[in-house]
Formats: sequence, structure tokens, C-alpha cells
Amino acid sequence: MNKKLTSADYPGIITLTTDWGSNDYYVGAVKGRLYTLLPNARVVDITHDIIPFDTAHAAYVLKNSFEMFPEGSVHIIGVDSEDFATSQMVQSHVAVQYKGHYFIGSDNGVFSLILDGKKADAIVELTIPFEAVAGKVRFSFSGRDRFSAAAVHLAQGNDILELGKQLDGSKELMLFNPSYTKDFIKGVVVHVDHFENAITNISELLFEKVAQGREFEISFKRNRLNRISKLYSDTREVEPLALFNGAGLLELALNRSNISGLLGLRKNDAVLIEFHD
Amino acid sequence: MNKKLTSADYPGIITLTTDWGSNDYYVGAVKGRLYTLLPNARVVDITHDIIPFDTAHAAYVLKNSFEMFPEGSVHIIGVDSEDFATSQMVQSHVAVQYKGHYFIGSDNGVFSLILDGKKADAIVELTIPFEAVAGKVRFSFSGRDRFSAAAVHLAQGNDILELGKQLDGSKELMLFNPSYTKDFIKGVVVHVDHFENAITNISELLFEKVAQGREFEISFKRNRLNRISKLYSDTREVEPLALFNGAGLLELALNRSNISGLLGLRKNDAVLIEFHD
Amino acid sequence: MNKKLTSADYPGIITLTTDWGSNDYYVGAVKGRLYTLLPNARVVDITHDIIPFDTAHAAYVLKNSFEMFPEGSVHIIGVDSEDFATSQMVQSHVAVQYKGHYFIGSDNGVFSLILDGKKADAIVELTIPFEAVAGKVRFSFSGRDRFSAAAVHLAQGNDILELGKQLDGSKELMLFNPSYTKDFIKGVVVHVDHFENAITNISELLFEKVAQGREFEISFKRNRLNRISKLYSDTREVEPLALFNGAGLLELALNRSNISGLLGLRKNDAVLIEFHD
Repeated sequence: MNKKLTSADYPGIITLTTDWGSNDYYVGAVKGRLYTLLPNARVVDITHDIIPFDTAHAAYVLKNSFEMFPEGSVHIIGVDSEDFATSQMVQSHVAVQYKGHYFIGSDNGVFSLILDGKKADAIVELTIPFEAVAGKVRFSFSGRDRFSAAAVHLAQGNDILELGKQLDGSKELMLFNPSYTKDFIKGVVVHVDHFENAITNISELLFEKVAQGREFEISFKRNRLNRISKLYSDTREVEPLALFNGAGLLELALNRSNISGLLGLRKNDAVLIEFHD
Repeated sequence: MNKKLTSADYPGIITLTTDWGSNDYYVGAVKGRLYTLLPNARVVDITHDIIPFDTAHAAYVLKNSFEMFPEGSVHIIGVDSEDFATSQMVQSHVAVQYKGHYFIGSDNGVFSLILDGKKADAIVELTIPFEAVAGKVRFSFSGRDRFSAAAVHLAQGNDILELGKQLDGSKELMLFNPSYTKDFIKGVVVHVDHFENAITNISELLFEKVAQGREFEISFKRNRLNRISKLYSDTREVEPLALFNGAGLLELALNRSNISGLLGLRKNDAVLIEFHD
Repeated sequence: MNKKLTSADYPGIITLTTDWGSNDYYVGAVKGRLYTLLPNARVVDITHDIIPFDTAHAAYVLKNSFEMFPEGSVHIIGVDSEDFATSQMVQSHVAVQYKGHYFIGSDNGVFSLILDGKKADAIVELTIPFEAVAGKVRFSFSGRDRFSAAAVHLAQGNDILELGKQLDGSKELMLFNPSYTKDFIKGVVVHVDHFENAITNISELLFEKVAQGREFEISFKRNRLNRISKLYSDTREVEPLALFNGAGLLELALNRSNISGLLGLRKNDAVLIEFHD
């Protein structure tokens, strides 16, 4: 657990990563609650446009941004955030401590994707009550009625263990990982961004491990590339290119254009890399 | 009028609820003006995606979020916000004090929807001048040239009466309210949210008053439901459900899916509840 | 150069005008980096919905909002923001000081559009290194890995010249300006806003210079108007009108409706004004 910060050092930053959209009262209600509970809070929108219920999308966004924030920041994940138990499954609310950051959300697998196989410093099942609004306790708006209070508790540097009971782990959700042999990596497109660039699940680390400096050919949708660019602008306009993006993942793009729309390269489409001497 | 806060206690929070969208200079200009006039302001986006000129939409969003903010917060409503007088009608700019909060906007009926029949603590018609920008006074961008100065005045704890002349009331706008008898409630869908859940105008309060603990059947678009869920997850996936949402209103949904798109349940569609012993 | 502010006066405001969209990790990563480097920063979203690579759109938004912010504010432009040199062209990262504000972006012409023919107080080509993230220096995410550090340097009141080497000018990008004679102005629609109002490149200044108080006829798409409104509400609903908007530009609209969609008036369409005695 993080020992470096004292309460006074806590940055009071609480970020929001949700699928609530932007035409509703949900975002305003949670921001208001946070400012009421912690007058010095700094509430930061990461996004409210996660695809509804898409925990992999939420994990992709937060995994690649949380470490940029100062230690002691708290990250609310408002995606698939109910706390329920049916005969088929149980899904609890949890708070997770990892690398000096705090995460609050539903134990739907999103944390295993953010931690990517690493171990959390603490995982706590929330037992703090839902807050009543207008005299009524409701269970369907966790972001306002439970996550806000938990976030403010943590943003002030209070002990995560006071929020509930410690768990050994969180729900594991496995994404399709690239398969590979000595001469071959097979991955898929995992995300199409705002520019319609196609981001794959092939990391630079895996690429370098298999490549060992050899030549290679990347193929997808009848296209072949045999080099990695440093910049989009390394190619002419509307020419296909591959680069390792800011998240360290192989990304396919058309310089200043939209590869997903123009070449029909979509989420879950295969991307192959063959290496040869 | 609120007597509890002293100037030093004012949170400096100014929220924005507008139909200005997000691809223009409007939002930036108003934020800039607010930070210039009040360096310690905290400007909070509630939404800029109100349906253009839809005062009922703006009221729905703000009514269900403003009380979450600390007392002394100021809420700018940038929807249908001109100040004009024609031979047919007059629409003034007003500032409204209610429950320790301040609202600034055009007297187009939005305040009556937010207050929902309650009485404001003060309603003031703005007589402060429009500010000149680049040497010109313009009347078409009230958010920047008049609301900002009024908001900062109030956010610092200054007297609302200094902004203009007190009015007895604001324009009344009546929404279609549910009709009901001893055994029957008839309402409509008033809002479809980002998940395409359908929110009706039937409150839990009205439901309980008529229900008196009896059994019931909710019907809409050839569907029938005879229970109220506590959670979306109380039903199986893509199964219809009804719950009282975070705003205290009857909401119809498909668990983890989109009822409005899939069942064709849209704004203004009827929802009936029949009670029987 | 601005001499009025001391370091202690700097507002710590860093605004973001980008084409990064809102469903990705880009915005979160940059906000996080800024708060880490400058704990007291106030990061302000202007927009993340600039049309991809549309420097004219970015310039339109920022030109009409930056002066509303307090002096000493820093404005990051995350649009077409690579730093590259090919056999055909060179595009560097620059920081620009103008009217007490700072701008950081790629020298793609956006600064010439914001300055609109005026001279910057300083233009500096960034030579500060890209920051490594997870042990790797990447060049494709300038906003996170170079602009953030430059912005924080400036937001603290440090000397712009410490960021690199001073340049004499920035890349000139010319927009199509209105042509005019003694009796005639010919302009085009340069922007369609969220309300689908059509904003032209004809300024009130040019209009008044040519008009000399004479009568006139504005024509576009088979429509004719012979007066300038002060307010949208000066006309009946859905009636065409012309006004000089908050940016000082001639705007064509239908009161409470959408002229671009209904009359087919789109970006680059011609708008003519003929003056007569």
C-alpha cells in the first residue's frame, strides 16, 4: 500500500469514466454530490461516452490514462455499476487500490482488465450504505448514492479498509490475447478511435520479443505493411501505416484519414504479423 | 431567503446547462468570461446537449441535479435565452433564488418546471447591462454578455436584488401531468435517456397514493408488467422491467438493453397503470 | 511581451481545443499529466469535437473564445499536431505569445488564422524533449508527451524563450476572404453551428465600411433579406434572418429552427450583399 502521501498531500482529484452520456442529469448529480461532500474536490471528466455496458472499453480508456494523474487520485467507473446477487451471479461494489491510485466501481471484471494480471494493493467490497435522496434509498444510481461517498472518503486520504471488507481478488475477465509462435503473431483490433484508427491488442513488447530484429509483414484486410512508422506523417496522405501508439499498442491507420471506414477494418478483425530472416 | 452562508462560505460553483453543443466557441467564451470575472470560480459542465430550445429537457436535467450541489451554487441555463419583447410576447432575463441555490436564464417557463409548483425565494428581472465585447454590445449571446456577470455577482454572495427589479412570479409552463382515478393512472414517457430507457411522468409518490398496497398492471406498447424492480439486474437480460429511478419517476427499461429502440417506446407515448384488489 | 503579470498572478488556466473526441483515453491522459505537473492547474475543456484535422475550425473556436479567459492563460491546440519533416514539408511544434495569452500547437497555419494578420509577441519552435511514458519515447501523442510540459512551463509564468528557439513567423494559412466592390460584398458560409445556423466570413466592420448607411439586399439560396436583426427573436418562428453574431460575423438563421438543414445552406455556399442608394 502507498505510504508516501499524507492526508494533506492528497490532490482531491476524482475522475469520472462512465457510459452515462451527456444529455441527462446523471453527470450533474454526481458532480454536485462530490462538490458537496468535498468542497475542495477537483472533479475531472475522462469520458461519459463509454459504449453502454462495455467494460473492456472503460478499461482501455482508464488503463491508458490513470497513471498520468497524481498519486492519490480516485477514479470512479460508472459502467455496468449495479450491486446485485441473483441465483446465477453476484456482482458487488468494490474499491481497489493500485499503484497509489484508487478505483471505485462494480466488480464486473473491469478491474482485472485495468490491472492486466498485476496484483492490487487492496480490494475492498463496499459495505457502506447507499445514501437516501429526497428521503428514499434507491439502488439503481450507485454513482450518486454510493460511489460519491466512497470516492470522497478515499480522496481525503482515509483508509480504504474502512469502506467494507477486504477481498482476495476481483472478478477475472479475460480479453482475447494475441497468439504467437516463433515466427508469427495473430491479434485482433480491440478499439476504433475517434479518427477511426484501428488499435490492436499486439503490444510493442510482444512484437519485439518475437521479432528479434527480423524483417516482418503485417497483414490485414488484403493489405500488407513491412515497416513500423514513428509518426502518422511518415507516410503520404491516405496511405496505410502501422505504428506503436501512445498506449504501446500496434495501431493501423491511414495518414490523415480513416482506416476503419475506408478499408472496412473493424473491432475484432484479425491482424497477422509474420517474421522472416 | 437563505441566511446561512456568509460571503466567505460561497462555494464559487457555477454550473452550465445549455443547448450550445460542443463544436463551437460558445462554451469556451462563457467559461473564459467566468474565470476572468471570478478567478476562484469552479465552472462545472452539467450538459451542453440539451435539445435545442427544449426547456422541458433543461428543466428535467437541472431539477434532478441542482440540489446535489452545495448551497450557494449558481446555475446558468443557456437554453432559449433571449431577452425580447414583441407585440405577441415578452421574455425577460431573470435570476431566481430557491432552496439556497441561484438560477439564471430566460423567463421562458423553465423555472416553473424546476420549481414544480413551489414558490421561489426571490425572482428578479435582470436590468444589468449587456457587456460590450470588442467594443460592440450584442444581444444575441446572453450567456457571455449578461449571464456571466450576473452569475459571478451571485457566486460571490452578493444580493440578488442588486441585479434588477423583483418580480412576483415567473412564466408558468405546465407539463402534461398524469391523470388518475381511484384505480387507474395514465401517464406518458417524458424523456428517453442515453441508454434508451424510457422515463415517465409518474412519480413514486403518486403511485403509492393510488396503489394503497394493491396489485397492479403497468401496460405500454402491448407489454404488461405487474411488479416494480429495485434494480435493473432484478430481471434477466433484455427483459422488460419497471423501476422508480434516481429521480423518483417510473422508468421502463430492458435490462442491459434499449427499450426505446427495441420496443418503439418513445417520448409522449402513453403508459397506463391499473390497480385491483 | 506582456509585462503586467508576476508569477504569482498566473491563473494556472490551461484550455484544451482538440479533435480527439470523447470516447478515448487521449483527453484523460493529458488532463492527468497537467494535474501531475501543476497541482494547482485548472484544466478547461473548450472542445474535443473539432472536425479531425480541420485547423480552420479550431481557429474559429479559439479565436472567438481565448480573449474571454484571463491573461496568462495557456491554450493547447490538439489538432493536426505532429512535428515532422518530410522532403515535401516541415511542420514544427511552436508556442506563441499574443495579447498576454499563450498557445501551443503544431505550426500548421492555425496560429495565422487565430492572429488574423496581427503580429505575435513571440513565436518559439519547441526544442524541449518528448517525455518518455512507460520507458518509451513516442512521437505520435504530442499532447501528452510534449505540449503538457510546455503548457505547464508557461502557465507558471516562465519565459517562453526557454522552450526553444525564437522564430520570425509562423506558417501562413489564408482563408478565403470576402471580395467586395463599392456596391457589393461576396462571402461564403464558413461554419455551421450546433443550431445549424450558418456563419459567414463577412464581418460587421466590412459591412459597415461598404454600406455607408445605404439600403441593401442579402441573397443566398433563392432567399433575400434586406435588414439586419439585433436578435433571433426579431422575426417570427422559422423565418429567415441575418444578424451580426457574438463573433462579429454575419450569421444567417431561421428563428428557433435550423437554416442549414431546412434551406440546404452549407459550408462554402456563397452569400451576396448588394448595396443601393
